[in-house]
Amino acid sequence: MKEQKKASETFATTSKIVLPNDTNTLGNLMGGQLLNWMDINAAISAQRHCRRVVVTAAVNNVSFNKAIKLGDVVSIESKVSRSFGSSMEVFLDVYVENHRTGKRTKCNEAIYTFVAVDQVGQPIGVPVLVPETDIEKERFAGALRRRQLGLILAKKMKPSEATELKALFEE
Amino acid sequence: MKEQKKASETFATTSKIVLPNDTNTLGNLMGGQLLNWMDINAAISAQRHCRRVVVTAAVNNVSFNKAIKLGDVVSIESKVSRSFGSSMEVFLDVYVENHRTGKRTKCNEAIYTFVAVDQVGQPIGVPVLVPETDIEKERFAGALRRRQLGLILAKKMKPSEATELKALFEE
Amino acid sequence: MKEQKKASETFATTSKIVLPNDTNTLGNLMGGQLLNWMDINAAISAQRHCRRVVVTAAVNNVSFNKAIKLGDVVSIESKVSRSFGSSMEVFLDVYVENHRTGKRTKCNEAIYTFVAVDQVGQPIGVPVLVPETDIEKERFAGALRRRQLGLILAKKMKPSEATELKALFEE
Amino acid sequence: MKEQKKASETFATTSKIVLPNDTNTLGNLMGGQLLNWMDINAAISAQRHCRRVVVTAAVNNVSFNKAIKLGDVVSIESKVSRSFGSSMEVFLDVYVENHRTGKRTKCNEAIYTFVAVDQVGQPIGVPVLVPETDIEKERFAGALRRRQLGLILAKKMKPSEATELKALFEE
Amino acid sequence: MKEQKKASETFATTSKIVLPNDTNTLGNLMGGQLLNWMDINAAISAQRHCRRVVVTAAVNNVSFNKAIKLGDVVSIESKVSRSFGSSMEVFLDVYVENHRTGKRTKCNEAIYTFVAVDQVGQPIGVPVLVPETDIEKERFAGALRRRQLGLILAKKMKPSEATELKALFEE
Amino acid sequence: MKEQKKASETFATTSKIVLPNDTNTLGNLMGGQLLNWMDINAAISAQRHCRRVVVTAAVNNVSFNKAIKLGDVVSIESKVSRSFGSSMEVFLDVYVENHRTGKRTKCNEAIYTFVAVDQVGQPIGVPVLVPETDIEKERFAGALRRRQLGLILAKKMKPSEATELKALFEE
Repeated sequence: MKEQKKASETFATTSKIVLPNDTNTLGNLMGGQLLNWMDINAAISAQRHCRRVVVTAAVNNVSFNKAIKLGDVVSIESKVSRSFGSSMEVFLDVYVENHRTGKRTKCNEAIYTFVAVDQVGQPIGVPVLVPETDIEKERFAGALRRRQLGLILAKKMKPSEATELKALFEE
Repeated sequence: MKEQKKASETFATTSKIVLPNDTNTLGNLMGGQLLNWMDINAAISAQRHCRRVVVTAAVNNVSFNKAIKLGDVVSIESKVSRSFGSSMEVFLDVYVENHRTGKRTKCNEAIYTFVAVDQVGQPIGVPVLVPETDIEKERFAGALRRRQLGLILAKKMKPSEATELKALFEE
Repeated sequence: MKEQKKASETFATTSKIVLPNDTNTLGNLMGGQLLNWMDINAAISAQRHCRRVVVTAAVNNVSFNKAIKLGDVVSIESKVSRSFGSSMEVFLDVYVENHRTGKRTKCNEAIYTFVAVDQVGQPIGVPVLVPETDIEKERFAGALRRRQLGLILAKKMKPSEATELKALFEE
Repeated sequence: MKEQKKASETFATTSKIVLPNDTNTLGNLMGGQLLNWMDINAAISAQRHCRRVVVTAAVNNVSFNKAIKLGDVVSIESKVSRSFGSSMEVFLDVYVENHRTGKRTKCNEAIYTFVAVDQVGQPIGVPVLVPETDIEKERFAGALRRRQLGLILAKKMKPSEATELKALFEE
Repeated sequence: MKEQKKASETFATTSKIVLPNDTNTLGNLMGGQLLNWMDINAAISAQRHCRRVVVTAAVNNVSFNKAIKLGDVVSIESKVSRSFGSSMEVFLDVYVENHRTGKRTKCNEAIYTFVAVDQVGQPIGVPVLVPETDIEKERFAGALRRRQLGLILAKKMKPSEATELKALFEE
Repeated sequence: MKEQKKASETFATTSKIVLPNDTNTLGNLMGGQLLNWMDINAAISAQRHCRRVVVTAAVNNVSFNKAIKLGDVVSIESKVSRSFGSSMEVFLDVYVENHRTGKRTKCNEAIYTFVAVDQVGQPIGVPVLVPETDIEKERFAGALRRRQLGLILAKKMKPSEATELKALFEE
């Protein structure tokens, strides 16, 4: 039987203070900088899942809903949400902490996909991801729809074959 | 009548040599670094479209198909593909150049969305984007489907209302 | 009565992958880079304690016991160990994770001191730190000896007045 | 016959947004940062000319005529202007774009010299550069005078032998 | 007889302008950045002492007494203060220069310890350090007390054996 | 009488270890990085001369004669060589130190020009530079020829008026 790993075992987190170096001319954290930080954090989750070198394969559904200001503390949290063969979908939640009140607000979500590779860079199989909590299960289920969508957009799957996704439009 | 701008007027390009600073332990360009470079280049396109401060609103459909190696020359090209009120979808093409043969290969595509903001960070309307070439027109048309998909995923639109997208599953 | 805060409320953590950018000519993480990362993480703990701008006042007892290699995942954890007027002692534990076995080993400890300041940079009082676990209590107790030692070395206290520290040599 | 390459084949361009990271205390782009960016862009032109590893050999005639401000978009363009044995002179034009009006102004020129090297770092011959446009021809002609001047200043040529340069003073 | 080296032969110095990149939200140089700069400068002193690769082993007694502002010129000076087997204690003095008056003020001191290593990272003996000036002799003498203190804190020496240090409390 | 300053009062020096971050694919220090380091060091000299904010105005006569390797210690030294109204010519010498033998070799020279500016960025007069040693006097004398050459190349002076420079070709 294939090796299994719990979602909770892939948890990774990072806290950052937004410094002048990271901001645009409005004094807000630049999107590209946050994308870079999320990539590193998500890679740690993927690496904890498979114990292999991992490379970024895709980025999807990143939305930046609110400006993060100079001096704010940003916390990035990630877990693998599902694995497919040699690829792993990683779900990220980003929180920002008001440095006076300590109030923590969720400011965005993102989904990255990583592939595990061997020494010569060839894809290699990874353990099966086992979700436990409600939110882990919901993200595990959604991962299949997102994967179908990705395959359709890349023209590697016919829309008629994307059973799960199709159902969304037939309700 | 609303101000118009041609897609070609929003073209921006950047060339980079992949340096040790930018690579992972396999000597390949890290995904997060490329995401960051693409964000800056796409922001220049968006800024050329609206002549306003722009902020990253979303990232979608980024796929990394082939490893980019230390020493390679990476060229990033972007144009605004469509505008909606205060937001602009920017399409990016990334090429890598073999430094011995000079052969240039496309290595990935990405789609970023930016919002134009005024001095206090409030969204502000942008010109209408006018596509001219075939590829510009194709991306302009696709932008509507991608926007519907984004609204559905964010639960701001019912799947039944996404006429264009729905058609995809009814063929 | 003075405001109180639990040690656990000041917990901050960061995970980093050691990249080429961070290493010396032996491929090991440079001490100065780790000092910089620890400073940011400790500042977040101090800021969570006092909800004020904090500035680094002193660094002590940092020892680098084992080389951290390129590609390793480093986790930095910190909590405020005790507060004195406007200053806070922060204790850091650094772990390194073998990326193949997942085995996590403690690789060093460090102690930083921060001062809370107001808008014009003047020191301002901070809440009392309340230790709860055994290790938090031990570090809370040690903080007083370390503070006496610091004052003696800075010639702001006579050795004879350092009751706690003196006891160490009289056993 | 020796391999030839057109100036237009060596064109390289980069666009950058001036970020806080790149500015001095007046909020202007620092000269050293621009020198660094120009070096990378010129190296891409030289590499496109010879398809070899190239190393910076000299920098000349860089003048910074106007301050470039935080938030401005800087475009750097370069082409090889002439080749001599294993060395290539690269001419750079730098433009700055007003982010409100879109007006593009030339803000400086620079001349870098690169040498093509083999695997052990030894100089290796490069193709002959063929200028086509008027400006390319003018820069091609000037390259000889600049080279003579460089050799005189380095005391590798007697002023009396610098026929082209000498003529300048005899008009 | 063991090789000897004078303290003056290990002198290293660096001057830096504090740039936006290096500051916190108050516009002051961040402690972690200064720790990083001091590490590099101290490593050069240690390397000049032993002509070997050196790695940071410990940091002690760093105190930040006054804020260093954006635009200030910081000068870091270091010398090896004493050697023990394969380790070297390096003493640093940091000065800040008011950019209008040119007045130079000492703003902090720090003590780093480095270990010389061979190609496989094993510790290797270093020359004996010979102090010459008064301040070099004072720091050479103090190094023994600091070393005893370090060994006690690391529980590698009993307080009763720390003869020099103990005397401090018996005055 | 105008304020005077000795060349020796403008001396500035920096030592750097070449790290992976600073090298190209051959493991050599990149030219652009060295140009950036020299700019900062030269700016400190210029600032010490005039006690004003200074901006880079021009770079000339930089030649990179030998490759500087990963792990080498680079020392940059600079002094103002002459002042003209509001501008200052700064002469730099760069040395590289073999980390095993300690042998120090000169590896290049460079000449930067800075302008002193007031709060609104307008040029402002600087003290007269007084050379004392032979090398300082030689560089002071050469500065006039270099300035004439610069003015001719910028078409702000007729070759026939460049008395000092012309003499060079009439010997």
